[in-house]
Amino acid sequence: MKLGDLGEFGIIDRLSRDLINRPGEVVQGIGDDTAVLNLEGPWWLLFTTDMLVEGVHFSLDYATPAQVGIKTVAVNVSDIAAMGGWPAHGVVSLGLPTRLSVEEVEELYQGIRRAAGEYGLNIVGGDTVMSPERLVINLALLGFVEKGRAVYRSGARVGDLIYVTGGLGKSAAGLYLCRHPDLTIDPGMAAFLKQAHLEPRARLQAGRILSGAGVTAMDDVSDGLAAELREICRASGVGCRVRAEDIPVDYRVRRVAALANYDPLDWAFSGGEDFELVFTVPPDLARGVEEKLAAAGEECRCIGEVIPAEKGMVFELAGGRCVPLEARGYDHFAP
Amino acid sequence: MKLGDLGEFGIIDRLSRDLINRPGEVVQGIGDDTAVLNLEGPWWLLFTTDMLVEGVHFSLDYATPAQVGIKTVAVNVSDIAAMGGWPAHGVVSLGLPTRLSVEEVEELYQGIRRAAGEYGLNIVGGDTVMSPERLVINLALLGFVEKGRAVYRSGARVGDLIYVTGGLGKSAAGLYLCRHPDLTIDPGMAAFLKQAHLEPRARLQAGRILSGAGVTAMDDVSDGLAAELREICRASGVGCRVRAEDIPVDYRVRRVAALANYDPLDWAFSGGEDFELVFTVPPDLARGVEEKLAAAGEECRCIGEVIPAEKGMVFELAGGRCVPLEARGYDHFAP
Repeated sequence: MKLGDLGEFGIIDRLSRDLINRPGEVVQGIGDDTAVLNLEGPWWLLFTTDMLVEGVHFSLDYATPAQVGIKTVAVNVSDIAAMGGWPAHGVVSLGLPTRLSVEEVEELYQGIRRAAGEYGLNIVGGDTVMSPERLVINLALLGFVEKGRAVYRSGARVGDLIYVTGGLGKSAAGLYLCRHPDLTIDPGMAAFLKQAHLEPRARLQAGRILSGAGVTAMDDVSDGLAAELREICRASGVGCRVRAEDIPVDYRVRRVAALANYDPLDWAFSGGEDFELVFTVPPDLARGVEEKLAAAGEECRCIGEVIPAEKGMVFELAGGRCVPLEARGYDHFAP
Repeated sequence: MKLGDLGEFGIIDRLSRDLINRPGEVVQGIGDDTAVLNLEGPWWLLFTTDMLVEGVHFSLDYATPAQVGIKTVAVNVSDIAAMGGWPAHGVVSLGLPTRLSVEEVEELYQGIRRAAGEYGLNIVGGDTVMSPERLVINLALLGFVEKGRAVYRSGARVGDLIYVTGGLGKSAAGLYLCRHPDLTIDPGMAAFLKQAHLEPRARLQAGRILSGAGVTAMDDVSDGLAAELREICRASGVGCRVRAEDIPVDYRVRRVAALANYDPLDWAFSGGEDFELVFTVPPDLARGVEEKLAAAGEECRCIGEVIPAEKGMVFELAGGRCVPLEARGYDHFAP
């Protein structure tokens, strides 16, 4: 069977069996944004890893090495944010093509250094090897969260409201602009969207606020809203109903989508890499969550609600008609 | 400047500056086998990462996917062993070419699973992405060690004796046999050496014994004995004198080297990937260390002694003549 026939999620399910030999130390293993590990003292340990491959996750044709470093850190910090914790220590593996200059590798590290400083984390080790064709970067990141305060994908309950922070589709619109530099568009608008794609920021502050405010499930939007909702619904054993008109899509994203002849909702649902947080919250806590985020300068928007699993995942169009929400998030091995 | 002009060690020195933003939590950052991190409770946390690239660190022409998985785990556990700790939790990133079948990826994971079971560690998460040309595997591994008991490279003192566990050159001889399947040699001998290369074992038990027995510095022999001695001497501010006739080289390694027209000491010094432990110990503790290892069925051999830095790194030939010990361990970017 070829990898493409199975898809990334199927592969992980098949591979992740029987890998625990010290069960007493594991609070949450494979299947969420990070592993959650037990420690003495007041905190749990969060542990995550992400690999970025040149030509798959980034292109040096339009990203600088520093931007690749910034993105590598953000992708990992976003997983920690989605658990409600804070990042602490990372180790970086670099697979370097010899065509790269020392200056380019130093610039890559400048990006890592800058992002590590912004998120307040240490880089405490690494490995540097040769990778003949493609630059490959792996960051493995440790974080902490107060015991009992980690937010899983599995806690959504029927009746909970579904929210998303910030806006969606910016990264996809930015990628489109990187790939189509000839598109005629306001330069400030283009710079804003390209930066959203090339220098994404993890919603660390929002994640910390949310984990202390009673949210029931949370995920970061790395593979597109549809994929993350599918993960939450599957892990929680629920369905969802999401309203098209409430999906937060920035006017600049709509502008590029119009020029490119795309549906901007496709970018919001399937584009991925926005690194916003999607979360569920009981209705009686929703106002408090909104206020706490607003007080910290963080935006959020209610986009729908959690419904029973047997009703499925439903997308409510502008006119009120409902269609199935196809889970079309980014899959590395989909045909 | 091209990467090849600088070498791996030079790159790491240049990149590793200003990466600490939470200094109070770091006992040892970049520059040893693992990072050492402070925690509440009786233990320190050890954190390490290693990336293996197809065609650079292994070849699927002669290694099975399961053997690649076994080696990936052993390489990382060996770093934990060299600190005197025990491994606990790993996260695996896989960069998969689509030419691989699902069965091959499952076989890779079977190797990871088997090695994780043998060393008693958990795999608690991972990332699975596309890597068009080459299989890339990264394992990031956490371990623990009792506070104050981690063994660094920097603790060697003039007068200490230098020891190495087991035997050296087996991995290099095994690699030679993998690459020269037409060499006429006893099949049992060939199988033994190829297994040493393809399914290396970390010296976890020896590392635990040594960290409790007063050794002053320790490193695992991943890049060859010369490179590891250079690391210890540099970190400790000392020199070393090593006797050629005491370097433990298995008779099977000598046999293959004779057939291949190689100096077996070259394999011992520069071959790497033996994953033995090289360590230093004060003379008055040496007998106790030998006895403790022997009681656990672990071999070791005294190969020389620590001398003042200004005397350099010296290699004493069989006739008593001394020559400089060139640090010729494996360097990924050497010309």
